[in-house]
Amino acid sequence: MHVTLVHVHVKPESLEAFVAATRRNHEGSLREPGNLRFDVLQSEDEPSRFVLVEIFRDAEAAVAHKQTPHYLAWRDEVAAWMAAPREGKRYRMLAPLAARP
Amino acid sequence: MHVTLVHVHVKPESLEAFVAATRRNHEGSLREPGNLRFDVLQSEDEPSRFVLVEIFRDAEAAVAHKQTPHYLAWRDEVAAWMAAPREGKRYRMLAPLAARP
Repeated sequence: MHVTLVHVHVKPESLEAFVAATRRNHEGSLREPGNLRFDVLQSEDEPSRFVLVEIFRDAEAAVAHKQTPHYLAWRDEVAAWMAAPREGKRYRMLAPLAARP
Repeated sequence: MHVTLVHVHVKPESLEAFVAATRRNHEGSLREPGNLRFDVLQSEDEPSRFVLVEIFRDAEAAVAHKQTPHYLAWRDEVAAWMAAPREGKRYRMLAPLAARP
């Protein structure tokens, strides 16, 4: 599996637009055959900070995700709303061994 | 939903024991009726760092988790293996609206 936690810091005035755009990316991502999870989490303490939990079947599926219309639209839409560059951290999934969305 | 990302930093010499104990906690947690996810992630860059993605149906289910034998056994087992205190961060789950393990 290919697991990435993407840490996102959004400008306060762009929160609502970011959430709407990210929900669209979530919906599209769940329809990809290689996607296992695309969780969108918002920090309770700092609502301008988000974590996307992105799990794909393998590296090829993660590469394919970045070529989808919903990802490319999201990437362009949110670009101006970032308070800082996004940071993706890669993880090994120790459990469960099979993840479902 | 009640979402927590628990950040764990383990002493290098205790990695193997920590993974085994945490897999046991994972197995027990998935059997709790109020648990929706208990993902165990290991950093690729820093294998001594882990993230537990814990999702419960509600706050009551999260409280109940901390009273289970598997949680209490894990808490006591891993105590000596921590390189630093664990840090739990709470999130709102924006998507999906229904999570399955």
